[in-house]
Amino acid sequence: MTDQKATNVTWHEHKVTREDRQKLNGHRGAVLWFTGLSGCGKSTIANAVDQLLHEQGVHTFVLDGDNIRMGLNKNLGFSPEDRTENIRRIGEVAKLFADAATIVSTAFISPYKADRDMVRELLPAGEFVEILVQASLETCESRDPKGLYKKARAGEIPNFTGISAPYEAPENPEIVLDSDNKGIEELAREVIAWLKANDILPA
Amino acid sequence: MTDQKATNVTWHEHKVTREDRQKLNGHRGAVLWFTGLSGCGKSTIANAVDQLLHEQGVHTFVLDGDNIRMGLNKNLGFSPEDRTENIRRIGEVAKLFADAATIVSTAFISPYKADRDMVRELLPAGEFVEILVQASLETCESRDPKGLYKKARAGEIPNFTGISAPYEAPENPEIVLDSDNKGIEELAREVIAWLKANDILPA
Repeated sequence: MTDQKATNVTWHEHKVTREDRQKLNGHRGAVLWFTGLSGCGKSTIANAVDQLLHEQGVHTFVLDGDNIRMGLNKNLGFSPEDRTENIRRIGEVAKLFADAATIVSTAFISPYKADRDMVRELLPAGEFVEILVQASLETCESRDPKGLYKKARAGEIPNFTGISAPYEAPENPEIVLDSDNKGIEELAREVIAWLKANDILPA
Repeated sequence: MTDQKATNVTWHEHKVTREDRQKLNGHRGAVLWFTGLSGCGKSTIANAVDQLLHEQGVHTFVLDGDNIRMGLNKNLGFSPEDRTENIRRIGEVAKLFADAATIVSTAFISPYKADRDMVRELLPAGEFVEILVQASLETCESRDPKGLYKKARAGEIPNFTGISAPYEAPENPEIVLDSDNKGIEELAREVIAWLKANDILPA
């Protein structure tokens, strides 16, 4: 901005930096990117991590189907282009939250390696934490809380990840969670321990 | 989620609510939607409000051309449809930040009433604060830090708001700032006084 009329006050333009926001919040921002099959526990674990961190005074947020599919991405469908754009937008929003020194968890199947790698590239080094929620198809299908696998097996849902569309598991995720054999709280605590061991959160 | 294998821990699923986040932050979330002509001072005032609030320990963020046009909305142009989609996405992201109990400021010309009203509809009552940054075209054109008005007058930029495209001023904005006659810091303090008088921030 140039000068203002009728004032002798000079405002020194300054933007609050990410470091300023980190100092206020007492921790860095980061994106906890949960990925895995439908029914693997992504959203439940992400919300458990969110809850446990919140109780410790950490500034958090969760992006999941509930607040993204009905909002920002309500004009996207399930074509390959739209799936990629879905993940891109989520990644860009997650980046903004990380800039705001928030630990933001995302819970989307995000089956394609290229899409997840695109999001990793958006973030500063160390702020993208890829978390594979590992569960066998058998486990996921046995849970099937919304009956989606049943519909997919019946051919009523095309391109269903794990049934009629591929899931490309991460090759080098920061964290792997064994959702076949461990409970929600135990897995959530594994994530938090990792964040402390890797200087995202104060130990 | 249904039950987990091989564990006797039952996790009671619970999502951290907006009220929980408000309690942690010590204030509600809100969207401060600055609107006005190019050069009216939107971005500078938004950043001044952000800085002053941050210094008071308020959790804030700014969405502006710098972090939106190169990121989330980099695949949008300047067609009428793209302009509307630009504002819609910004509104949806601002809503997420407000849900996270953040005071988020947006600084976009947003010349169309229908687009701003669409964003207002997205937010809970009282959380959308429309701020008209009032400055005459003469003032804006005399500032013209990026030489945009000069180019627009020369016909090099089509559909330039105020020159070759309309600006639909808000009819009932929550706040009107007189950028013709007042300085940046004074205007920023007017916004903060309004937030305190209207229970967005503790008085």
